[in-house]
Amino acid sequence: MLFKARVEIRLKKGIADPEGVNTLKALHLLGFDSVKEVKSVKVFDIFLEGKNEENARRQVEKMCQRLLTNPVIHLYNIEVNKI
Amino acid sequence: MLFKARVEIRLKKGIADPEGVNTLKALHLLGFDSVKEVKSVKVFDIFLEGKNEENARRQVEKMCQRLLTNPVIHLYNIEVNKI
Repeated sequence: MLFKARVEIRLKKGIADPEGVNTLKALHLLGFDSVKEVKSVKVFDIFLEGKNEENARRQVEKMCQRLLTNPVIHLYNIEVNKI
Repeated sequence: MLFKARVEIRLKKGIADPEGVNTLKALHLLGFDSVKEVKSVKVFDIFLEGKNEENARRQVEKMCQRLLTNPVIHLYNIEVNKI
């Protein structure tokens, strides 16, 4: 069965987010003064084969631990849907 | 009123996604052979003041057009919630 897993990777609280900070600065320079904060988030949409949803989720969990995320600075969550 | 706008930026169909392709290759090298495709997506969570939801959405739409996205290669959608 084919699944689509969405992995959303955020920075932990207290970890610097230079991309977010610089995007905020650029928006202010363009006159968007109503913006208070910008946070950058990275998302991977992963299409994979799995025996069932639980199996697909376990595989993606391992991918996060081995490649996609850095546990020192990242939080992540995984959303799996059959397609 | 304070709003949180989530801007999700994807590549248009047919536009090369080297980050996705290389992530797929790396996952295969690590033995995750069940993965068929990886698409990279960029997300900005923008916290802003607005008169109402419609006003906040219009502001974020303008930010997308002026800074956050490139209409040649990107598709985007905006989700606005009061916080």
